[in-house]
Amino acid sequence: MDDLLPGMLHLVRDGGEPLTRQLTDHLRELIAAGRLVPGQRLPSSRHLAKLLEVSRNTVSFAIEQLAAEGYLTLSAGRRPSVAEGLSLEGAKLPSRTARAAPDAPRLSSWARGLARTQWPLAHEKRPRPFQPGLADEREFPHDLWSRCLRRASRNALSRRERTINHTPLQEALLRHLSEHRGVKAKPDQILIVPTAQAGLTLIAGSMLERGDHAWIESPGYGGAHVALRTAGAVVSAIPLDAQGMTIAARREAPKLIFVTPSHQYPTGRLMPIGRRLELLRYAEMSGACIIEDDYDGEFHYEARPVAALQGLTPSPRIFYLGTFSKSTYADIRIGYVIVPEAHIETFELAQRYMGMLTSIAMQDALAEFIGSGAYLGHIKRMTRLYKGRRDRLLQALAAEAGGHLTVEAPAGGMQLLARCRAAVNDQHLAIRLLEAGVISRPLSSLLYHRSGEQGLFLGFAAWNEKEIDRGAEILGRILRQEKSRCD
Amino acid sequence: MDDLLPGMLHLVRDGGEPLTRQLTDHLRELIAAGRLVPGQRLPSSRHLAKLLEVSRNTVSFAIEQLAAEGYLTLSAGRRPSVAEGLSLEGAKLPSRTARAAPDAPRLSSWARGLARTQWPLAHEKRPRPFQPGLADEREFPHDLWSRCLRRASRNALSRRERTINHTPLQEALLRHLSEHRGVKAKPDQILIVPTAQAGLTLIAGSMLERGDHAWIESPGYGGAHVALRTAGAVVSAIPLDAQGMTIAARREAPKLIFVTPSHQYPTGRLMPIGRRLELLRYAEMSGACIIEDDYDGEFHYEARPVAALQGLTPSPRIFYLGTFSKSTYADIRIGYVIVPEAHIETFELAQRYMGMLTSIAMQDALAEFIGSGAYLGHIKRMTRLYKGRRDRLLQALAAEAGGHLTVEAPAGGMQLLARCRAAVNDQHLAIRLLEAGVISRPLSSLLYHRSGEQGLFLGFAAWNEKEIDRGAEILGRILRQEKSRCD
Repeated sequence: MDDLLPGMLHLVRDGGEPLTRQLTDHLRELIAAGRLVPGQRLPSSRHLAKLLEVSRNTVSFAIEQLAAEGYLTLSAGRRPSVAEGLSLEGAKLPSRTARAAPDAPRLSSWARGLARTQWPLAHEKRPRPFQPGLADEREFPHDLWSRCLRRASRNALSRRERTINHTPLQEALLRHLSEHRGVKAKPDQILIVPTAQAGLTLIAGSMLERGDHAWIESPGYGGAHVALRTAGAVVSAIPLDAQGMTIAARREAPKLIFVTPSHQYPTGRLMPIGRRLELLRYAEMSGACIIEDDYDGEFHYEARPVAALQGLTPSPRIFYLGTFSKSTYADIRIGYVIVPEAHIETFELAQRYMGMLTSIAMQDALAEFIGSGAYLGHIKRMTRLYKGRRDRLLQALAAEAGGHLTVEAPAGGMQLLARCRAAVNDQHLAIRLLEAGVISRPLSSLLYHRSGEQGLFLGFAAWNEKEIDRGAEILGRILRQEKSRCD
Repeated sequence: MDDLLPGMLHLVRDGGEPLTRQLTDHLRELIAAGRLVPGQRLPSSRHLAKLLEVSRNTVSFAIEQLAAEGYLTLSAGRRPSVAEGLSLEGAKLPSRTARAAPDAPRLSSWARGLARTQWPLAHEKRPRPFQPGLADEREFPHDLWSRCLRRASRNALSRRERTINHTPLQEALLRHLSEHRGVKAKPDQILIVPTAQAGLTLIAGSMLERGDHAWIESPGYGGAHVALRTAGAVVSAIPLDAQGMTIAARREAPKLIFVTPSHQYPTGRLMPIGRRLELLRYAEMSGACIIEDDYDGEFHYEARPVAALQGLTPSPRIFYLGTFSKSTYADIRIGYVIVPEAHIETFELAQRYMGMLTSIAMQDALAEFIGSGAYLGHIKRMTRLYKGRRDRLLQALAAEAGGHLTVEAPAGGMQLLARCRAAVNDQHLAIRLLEAGVISRPLSSLLYHRSGEQGLFLGFAAWNEKEIDRGAEILGRILRQEKSRCD
């Protein structure tokens, strides 16, 4: 054996991998493969070093490492031996060759259900017109923002507090939200979360018992649907009228109601004060909580943005959800939740439990970006720009597809809903459009109640006039083709 | 009325708040407070402008805004009227004065349970010796890192792909992990998550059915305990022997097994190959999956870090969990999960559902930081530094508290476990230490099975020699005081 071992060890001396490492790895492999058997003794390290023409340190290091890992047994005055009890023969470990298709362990029923839902809707790797929900990242002041990030990151050592929600960001954001969104809160009611969807998951998990009822709007936001269902809720889809979600007592009172009152998603409608009060009264009466998703409430084109529901009344029932992804650019991701004051502590614990924390450097950079006025400046500039793009898309749709589509001009936001005048299959239409290079969301995929409505949900914020015109042209062409095919 | 209204409206002309905004807000408040009643007509905008001595545009804008919000009703040729159906009297909205203690809605039973658990252990806002689990952020190359961040952020527009897990980071991290941790995977098996805890939540939610059994180590990591319980698992605490988690068939086979084989948390023990194989065999036989948490596996002081369990065999049952918080600095937070190849798609969907995404700019900066060699360089430098600090703490504890504590010198990691020789109450001890300015974790708070073990879990990585000496001195003094009090 003493003479066989060196022949089994192929050390390469080209200065690449260190010899110690090669020797350790090769010895481990020999043991793991059963070529050195349990109980078998290695040569002494002095002897092995000589046989291999390496330094004794190299051998000693390898042997100690393998002893630490349990492959070798050392005892004073004796040569190292291959550890007993590894019994690799009985191991039946799957090897790459032995099993072509290993038995994948069973996923939870929740995970198995993921593939069957329509959210998130598959989209292309590269955004194209008219993908909804996208801000124009080409217009974002990346340079200014990257300087904020750099400064915040360099200043890491000056911040020794271990808070998970950074006070300067809570304060700057609250000043902004109370001034521009009518929000009423204390800074520490604001939790900073990795994404708005994480915020939804957090609220749903903290408020819902398995089997509780919850309401969403229909048509409505798929992310809310999945977050509420993930938390075990029985979700009811509430149809809309011209004022938004209709409130009518149902057999089972909801524990949570998800609404988008500033611009209903996807119709873009504004929920007027009468319906807002009705909703608040209903929540108060039935004991429900409200999640107000103000995802793009910053952008309002006809007048000043309508104030948030959250600020209407100091209520322990309203959760306000926001995101920086629409007001800055998609990749920033970070979202925030304003929780009722009574729940601050519990929600900070829930954040830690679920791991929904974000880098303090990132939060600090956002605090500077907002505090310096750059955030508001950007929002104001984008509001003008997006308004122009909305009008351009309305115009282009009227010209190219006026006979086929009825468009509700949204008072704000980043997208519009174009309903089909004739009975078409909007999912089929969306596929045809995608093939021609235009992204859209079929209205039917956003409906959660039985309804024959068909239409296309189109984003305008991220595209310049040329892109809008070209997209509308393609849309018009496809619609005319589909029409003539049906005739 | 026409003459009364101006008296109710107090406009301030000091150039602060715009007049349009003041007028809108005041009119809204008058309506909301019921001082203008439903059906009541406002003066014409021309007349009101005159009465208030403001421009007609100002009045028109305010009126249109309030009409959009539903407070006023407009009809052609008639003066605007306060909307009907607001019926604020019946609203019974809670007002700030009417309700001192509003009925806070009931939290889910999960959320109510948060306050009763011991994890995360409360700690001071500012880190102090010997808080475990902390890297020394003073030694981190913040300047270099902030330049990576800035570059990645400025380059945002050159990256138009909408992936949630950034390929360059997956590739750089895989190269690092396969070279230094023996991990075997394809790049797209690596998911980048906001925190390692988020990774745990993701795995638990995707693999566990309510009522499934799961194993954790005891003593062990509280974060795993809470993540598994949050997913509805019945968690069994498995006692350790010298080789780590003991494997013995129990009545109910577990669906998930959480282990820390590189440095057991909190004992710092290395699980040798024999036990690793036993664990893999048991998982294979029982159909369990394994979560290998390699939280600080980079730091090994006696030899090269022991290779990860994940690389031992290509298995569809192993989830590998890592974090940048230990290898860089705590605030970076970002974690990663290596999922079995068969589950990549499902887990990316689960990431989106739960909102566990991180900024691509941050991921890109990490890719550069790793790719440039700065990451490995930092780890190597910290390994030397932390080894010295471990030795210093061992020395200082022997000198100051040798008679009271038995210390297992950990072969790696950032913390050590000092067991109390005498029967003391380690929770009481930890409180006394905290009052004296020293942070520790009582061992009993990390035990999940019945056991009389008492000790202190102490971090050494984040503290320099002077801080270590001072901390140990305080520790020794308190231990002597406690001893004499008992005698």
